[in-house]
Amino acid sequence: MSGMEEQPPSGEKRSLRSGREAKRAARAARAASSIPYITRAIPRFEVLADDGLALIERNAETILAEIGIGFRDDPEALDLWRKAGADVEGEMVRFPRGMCRELVQRSAPREFTQYARNPARNVHIGGDCTVFAPAYGSPFIHNLDEGRRYARLDDFRNFVKLAYMANSLHHSGGTICEPVDLPVNKRHLDMVYSHLKYSDKAFMGSVTAPERAADSIELAKIAFGADAVDPASGRLRTMLISLINVNSPMVYDATMLGALKVYARANQATIITPFILSGAMSPVTVAGTAAQTLAEALAGMAFAQIVNTGAPVVLGSFASSISMQSGAPTFGTPEPALVLYTMAALARRLGVPFRSGGSLCASKVPDAQAAFESAQTLLPTCLAGVNFVLHTAGWLEGGLAMGYEKFMMDVDQAGMMHTLLAGVDLSENGQAMDAIREVGPGNHFLGCAHTQANFEGAFYRSPIADNNSYEQWQAEGSLDLAQRANALWKRQLAEYVPPPLDPAVDEALLDYIGRRKAAAPDSNV
Amino acid sequence: MSGMEEQPPSGEKRSLRSGREAKRAARAARAASSIPYITRAIPRFEVLADDGLALIERNAETILAEIGIGFRDDPEALDLWRKAGADVEGEMVRFPRGMCRELVQRSAPREFTQYARNPARNVHIGGDCTVFAPAYGSPFIHNLDEGRRYARLDDFRNFVKLAYMANSLHHSGGTICEPVDLPVNKRHLDMVYSHLKYSDKAFMGSVTAPERAADSIELAKIAFGADAVDPASGRLRTMLISLINVNSPMVYDATMLGALKVYARANQATIITPFILSGAMSPVTVAGTAAQTLAEALAGMAFAQIVNTGAPVVLGSFASSISMQSGAPTFGTPEPALVLYTMAALARRLGVPFRSGGSLCASKVPDAQAAFESAQTLLPTCLAGVNFVLHTAGWLEGGLAMGYEKFMMDVDQAGMMHTLLAGVDLSENGQAMDAIREVGPGNHFLGCAHTQANFEGAFYRSPIADNNSYEQWQAEGSLDLAQRANALWKRQLAEYVPPPLDPAVDEALLDYIGRRKAAAPDSNV
Repeated sequence: MSGMEEQPPSGEKRSLRSGREAKRAARAARAASSIPYITRAIPRFEVLADDGLALIERNAETILAEIGIGFRDDPEALDLWRKAGADVEGEMVRFPRGMCRELVQRSAPREFTQYARNPARNVHIGGDCTVFAPAYGSPFIHNLDEGRRYARLDDFRNFVKLAYMANSLHHSGGTICEPVDLPVNKRHLDMVYSHLKYSDKAFMGSVTAPERAADSIELAKIAFGADAVDPASGRLRTMLISLINVNSPMVYDATMLGALKVYARANQATIITPFILSGAMSPVTVAGTAAQTLAEALAGMAFAQIVNTGAPVVLGSFASSISMQSGAPTFGTPEPALVLYTMAALARRLGVPFRSGGSLCASKVPDAQAAFESAQTLLPTCLAGVNFVLHTAGWLEGGLAMGYEKFMMDVDQAGMMHTLLAGVDLSENGQAMDAIREVGPGNHFLGCAHTQANFEGAFYRSPIADNNSYEQWQAEGSLDLAQRANALWKRQLAEYVPPPLDPAVDEALLDYIGRRKAAAPDSNV
Repeated sequence: MSGMEEQPPSGEKRSLRSGREAKRAARAARAASSIPYITRAIPRFEVLADDGLALIERNAETILAEIGIGFRDDPEALDLWRKAGADVEGEMVRFPRGMCRELVQRSAPREFTQYARNPARNVHIGGDCTVFAPAYGSPFIHNLDEGRRYARLDDFRNFVKLAYMANSLHHSGGTICEPVDLPVNKRHLDMVYSHLKYSDKAFMGSVTAPERAADSIELAKIAFGADAVDPASGRLRTMLISLINVNSPMVYDATMLGALKVYARANQATIITPFILSGAMSPVTVAGTAAQTLAEALAGMAFAQIVNTGAPVVLGSFASSISMQSGAPTFGTPEPALVLYTMAALARRLGVPFRSGGSLCASKVPDAQAAFESAQTLLPTCLAGVNFVLHTAGWLEGGLAMGYEKFMMDVDQAGMMHTLLAGVDLSENGQAMDAIREVGPGNHFLGCAHTQANFEGAFYRSPIADNNSYEQWQAEGSLDLAQRANALWKRQLAEYVPPPLDPAVDEALLDYIGRRKAAAPDSNV
């Protein structure tokens, strides 16, 4: 009954699916304890009507045509743009109105599948689907026992394990935290290996240098074996999705362009993301930030198409605001939510998958500020219809720290979003008229047949929320949510069982990694 | 550009308002540091399409026609129903299909104004308007200094003062907390006096006995003086809005019916609210809970109309779920959010104002659980288009405790909702193309002319969120949000300045209260 005006995914092409099927999918989403990804059964929330969105699109084309986008330190990129018909002047590229849009709409897939080494974990990116991945990129970790310290490889492994065990996370993520105990030029090998060894969910590749992107692809090929190639097309399957950040405003640098080219040429997905703190990297307004974000992302996605026609791309938007007093980034405030709703609608009009949001916050600790700000990001993320949600779990301190307790809290919230997106069950059982007749005025429903029949799946059950009486809560130690989450992540790590991995594959991975590590001295560049 | 398909309010009647005017209202909402209430400029979120809503309406009519609603211990109510054409059998009343709906639609105002003793604080209830009021009914208070203890009159006064000072709260509320240091049969006099003395915002009347409702009206009449009566109609203005809870499932008791009749006859507004913990007072499903809520509310609102044609009523819905393990109520979970979106749409289809939501949580302390659950209630409240939001600030522990720190956190969140509901500014300034041109690729927007011109109002500013660096946060004592909120409520109470009140009016109020207190012995019934 709900959400049916939107077309559901069906591989790389669109098709119609009946209301009955959509309802079945919704019920499945509700019932399953572990599903590979969410297929939404409720509509999306829109803040702007078509004329407002069209205005922003026109402004984005004006930016592309009149101001232009810098492609820096990459002569090949400028050459490709020249051949494609753009106006290249030094390192500045200007685009005839509609050119980037047309390049994207001509060949970028509207939806695609990212393959996992366990095919049951393949994720569908785009359409009515939502994929939750952990937070990304923190140099620090935070937990109640140690406070904040630099992250290490053992933290990275811990978070891969916790994400693997989290039913509400569909993806293993990428640089969940930076293992700063390892040299910069080699740590990507250990990160990719950890994703492959300790999880069987889909994951992200390295983007910090073209050769590290190539390593990510090689390791995926080893792990996937024969499944790395699509037998029909003979092309590499999309095994990696990787994060290409724009140097906003309006600049792509050589590092990001290098990784982008490696991935696009190998048919691996890239998320083209203007990283914007509004007020610093974009105007202080929602409409201005959206126009600039769209322009920047269009240039990058179009670039991927001229590098390799049909390369899977995702329109990304990371937009927050800043404190006008201190310049510090702020999260979970209303303006970024308005940008998010706007960008999601613009991505749908363009016809590409969308990445944004997560559980963002500025708080240093897993307190009420962290929770308010995270909820005020995650719920808009889900209502707007974000397809790929980076930073779903763990994010603290504007992304500087990955929190163990925060991770468990966010995983719980992500679980609730599964129920929300499954919508309202309008079946006979959902209507529950028999229950209302059976119970009647003045009685209670606790023991009635309908309640008993629906006991298991009736309501979302949080493993860490405390709903007990004050007295019982006191008797159990008066713990707050962070303290209960602290106990849960420790219990989960103790109970972790790795997914099966063929020892020959494991050996081949380690062999490749050993050779690559031996090929160059350690470096922190 | 946004939210224009909905009709804005214009007194008691509907009229069209142009897009330009809506945009102006939005800008006003954004700019004003204190506005009497919110007029939304963004659309509402809907989870169900028309056919799903119609199905729930049919089920509600089936409940009214075939199961019926109990009107207990109130022969007058049964007599009124009999005369109106309902089928009365003992204390059970059954209604021909469509009867209650027709009674409501025939005479209940779609929107109305609740008058405040300061006319600048009048609030408009219904339509595109949202009014935020504090939490209601807690026997306990909680703060970081004392923990949890029984509430007293001084707490009640404190919260009236804090609500008066909160720009984001438009209403003084009612029984903000129970002053349990006063006798039950007299404490309403001190509560109503506190609202009139320490605030000039609109407030709620007592509902615990018909004579206490009458006292509330008498005190309001004294405070409003000549303004108590509408000169055009000669009728009492709506000076009070009061909370009539249904004894769900499907029972109205004599206490609530008594207060309802007193208020309806005096043209005072009532919020007819089925109070439902789904799984205990209603089925465990969203659609079942919504049908039952609608049936119960329809019977009560129709009753108000047969008591006094045209009496202002609000469709209320308080729906949460329970833990299926312990039976304890849970808040901020996805199922109540789905009920909320559904009921908001049903109220719009019926054509009456809607009350629901707030900042609900089960947590005992102002921790991350409190914040997650509150945000997962308040944001749906705002997106669904709730008109009267009880429990916007202070709610802890399923409503058993009113939290001082929680109050300040919730007030901050309510402030953010003002910005969200003002939507996207699509003016030239909002588009900010000049700023993008001025700054250009690779530079920053911090000092540009547009940023400087918009410096003041650019982003919502939280008085308690910490966005500083980790080092600065540490230097300031490593405080969490609750600790910063603790300092803020103390500072605000120290800075409180009461609104002007004519000493003669004050004397008359105290005289009335003195006489009423002397007329009966103290009692705790």
